[in-house]
Amino acid sequence: VNDLDVIAALATPVGKSALAIIRVSGKESHKIVSKCIKEADKFLSASFNYIYRYNFVDNKRNEIIDDITAIKYGNSKSYTGEDMVEIFSHGNKIIINEILNELTKNGARLAGKGEFTRRAFLNGKIDLIKAESIHQIIDSSNEIQKRICNNVKENKYEEIINSWKQDIQTLLVEIETEIEFSEDVAVEHKNYEMVDNIINKILKEKSLWDSIRVLNKSQKIVIAGPANAGKSSLFNTLVGYNRAIVTDIPGTTRDTISETIIIENNEIELIDSAGIRDTENKIEIEGITRTIQEIEDASIVLWINSVDQNRIEPDERLREKVIKINNKIDINNGKNDTENDEINISIEMGINIDKVYEAIKERIITINHAEIPSLIANERHYQITETMLNYLKDVIEYWNEKEKASYFLYKVLEEFEELLGKRDREEIYNSIFDKFCIGK
Amino acid sequence: VNDLDVIAALATPVGKSALAIIRVSGKESHKIVSKCIKEADKFLSASFNYIYRYNFVDNKRNEIIDDITAIKYGNSKSYTGEDMVEIFSHGNKIIINEILNELTKNGARLAGKGEFTRRAFLNGKIDLIKAESIHQIIDSSNEIQKRICNNVKENKYEEIINSWKQDIQTLLVEIETEIEFSEDVAVEHKNYEMVDNIINKILKEKSLWDSIRVLNKSQKIVIAGPANAGKSSLFNTLVGYNRAIVTDIPGTTRDTISETIIIENNEIELIDSAGIRDTENKIEIEGITRTIQEIEDASIVLWINSVDQNRIEPDERLREKVIKINNKIDINNGKNDTENDEINISIEMGINIDKVYEAIKERIITINHAEIPSLIANERHYQITETMLNYLKDVIEYWNEKEKASYFLYKVLEEFEELLGKRDREEIYNSIFDKFCIGK
Repeated sequence: VNDLDVIAALATPVGKSALAIIRVSGKESHKIVSKCIKEADKFLSASFNYIYRYNFVDNKRNEIIDDITAIKYGNSKSYTGEDMVEIFSHGNKIIINEILNELTKNGARLAGKGEFTRRAFLNGKIDLIKAESIHQIIDSSNEIQKRICNNVKENKYEEIINSWKQDIQTLLVEIETEIEFSEDVAVEHKNYEMVDNIINKILKEKSLWDSIRVLNKSQKIVIAGPANAGKSSLFNTLVGYNRAIVTDIPGTTRDTISETIIIENNEIELIDSAGIRDTENKIEIEGITRTIQEIEDASIVLWINSVDQNRIEPDERLREKVIKINNKIDINNGKNDTENDEINISIEMGINIDKVYEAIKERIITINHAEIPSLIANERHYQITETMLNYLKDVIEYWNEKEKASYFLYKVLEEFEELLGKRDREEIYNSIFDKFCIGK
Repeated sequence: VNDLDVIAALATPVGKSALAIIRVSGKESHKIVSKCIKEADKFLSASFNYIYRYNFVDNKRNEIIDDITAIKYGNSKSYTGEDMVEIFSHGNKIIINEILNELTKNGARLAGKGEFTRRAFLNGKIDLIKAESIHQIIDSSNEIQKRICNNVKENKYEEIINSWKQDIQTLLVEIETEIEFSEDVAVEHKNYEMVDNIINKILKEKSLWDSIRVLNKSQKIVIAGPANAGKSSLFNTLVGYNRAIVTDIPGTTRDTISETIIIENNEIELIDSAGIRDTENKIEIEGITRTIQEIEDASIVLWINSVDQNRIEPDERLREKVIKINNKIDINNGKNDTENDEINISIEMGINIDKVYEAIKERIITINHAEIPSLIANERHYQITETMLNYLKDVIEYWNEKEKASYFLYKVLEEFEELLGKRDREEIYNSIFDKFCIGK
């Protein structure tokens, strides 16, 4: 364990809430926190991993800042691999500010972005890919990102990396052997195929990532159609039908024209294009422009007509993403001259709202099941595979100059280590030369 | 302990963050959470108050939702006075949504506002005033609110309530005694004074609360003055000088024209009136109107002139709240024809910025030291003292009709119990008749 300075940071979002968590990490963290706790002896003698109540104090002003609970962690069982404290205070800006102030006055400093996870990485608690995945889990807003993170969590990435590394290492041993013992013999055709094979795998990975990248954008559903067809009613009905639980929590702002709903683990922005126009009716033109823009950005457009007024059809270019809806079928007198692929509803009577929801869900599920890459979990990995690919092309180019081919294969292996964040290249050489091992 | 159903809720703000806390409370809470945990046996046999790692799972889909830590509480040491669980997950909307979904699928329901604290109150863990103070602590944004909450925390409210109650009870006993034994003797003058005394105390409380109510508004500081005097530079400098620690945390939006800073425990909105104009330059008139409005709402106006251009003086009506500043004194060639109460600075050279800060701080400290009421900690209390006051006036009015005077004194005592939320009026009568106790 490295002896770094003590860092402190708020680990929960800023806002008014029942609770907030402040994390403190570093060898001296227990001592520093004890200086800010009225019951310092109780805190210092408390068992690890056990939560107790304390008073967090400003000792200079002899004032209680907040009544808190806190957990003390030893370095063996903490997130960072250092001694740590987690402080649970009331969720109030002034209190959090005062607590962080006291901690810094007593020797801690405010942590930089990701510094706790960086320490976990430096202390060998997690590898770089795991560290990245923690960030990605927090950042994910859809099922695909979640599947990618789960891959990492379940160690599938390491399996794949290790198997590909294995291939390269095997090849490298053979080439090195040839260099050593049989300089005149051409490298086997089989090996050439192996390189080609890896190149193709990487190309496939890259193209999968390219397609994921598009799906990864936050999904938007726009409700559009002629005036008075029921856009805002449909908006409110769908929001009520499947509002994300988290948006029910006080403090979450409710926008009148857009609302986040969660469908099949995808955070989706539902937009009422009627609202866009209404709020900007001073500048009607601008409102329409904005609607058009929203529709272009959307992955699904719910196009709603009403049977009691003239139909307007959506632009042909939108066909792929439009779900057509006819409202007010309850006043249609039994007539039904709508097209087959349309959903007939009555928002007022609550008819077929579930069908609209199912139609949306179906499209979302299709997105959810898109194939995900096995090796690339983020842009950094994408960049590294790009570099790998270039080295592999060099290997092909210099196939008949074995020393050069060998050199570029080493470079590919280095990039695998880069993936895992093992900047100490010793290990690459060790693993290679352990096998090589012909007394040279 | 009442056997209520199991409630679950997010206890931290919604947003992307390292951690989120989900609280679960109710007799069956341990059982319900165990159904969502892969290591169910480990969880069920875990010691109370200890934090352990678990996998939170969707058992139906056999999928890990998140790797969490959790603490199990027994009813004797929990916040609500019921069996409880606190779940610490990653701070991600989709994960939080899934966890709450799983909990509700397994028998919990989403908690309403303040329901955890309400249970703590119902289970006798806290009285109503303490319960309210928890809400007020979270909601407080300045030193005065904090001082009021500290009063409550340190039980000063209960002391005062009890001493006032004591006075009323003493008086009531005397009046009842008179009714019983000496119907013809007039009530002592001393007692009349006591009522008058309490009325005056309550009137003082109310007027203190009235003045606090104004100070309680979130404080605004507006930077105003002629164009090019350095408004935006001063804004940025002050923000940098004392930015609230919490606003450094990723995810906090940085507004270009207003920023929250914390000075002496007051959340203060610092507003750059230049910015108001600049962002709305299409509708210049509206921008100016808004500036005027901001200045009127502000408790402090930093009025900045620059020595290298013609001065503009603030409106005379603003005198009370203006701090006058002269910028660019470094290019003033030693001349200094400014007024005495003005602060000469150079933002560019960093001269006297601390003096501006100190001038602001001085005014804030004056506000901080304003006298606070002893009995009224919120609007509910204010309403109750209003009712008390009316009953006390009735006591005065019917002073010579002792039965009526006695009746209205009972009513006053009931209002004291209302303050503490003791809806069971038994206690009032008990305490009265215990003293009364003359075999009747």
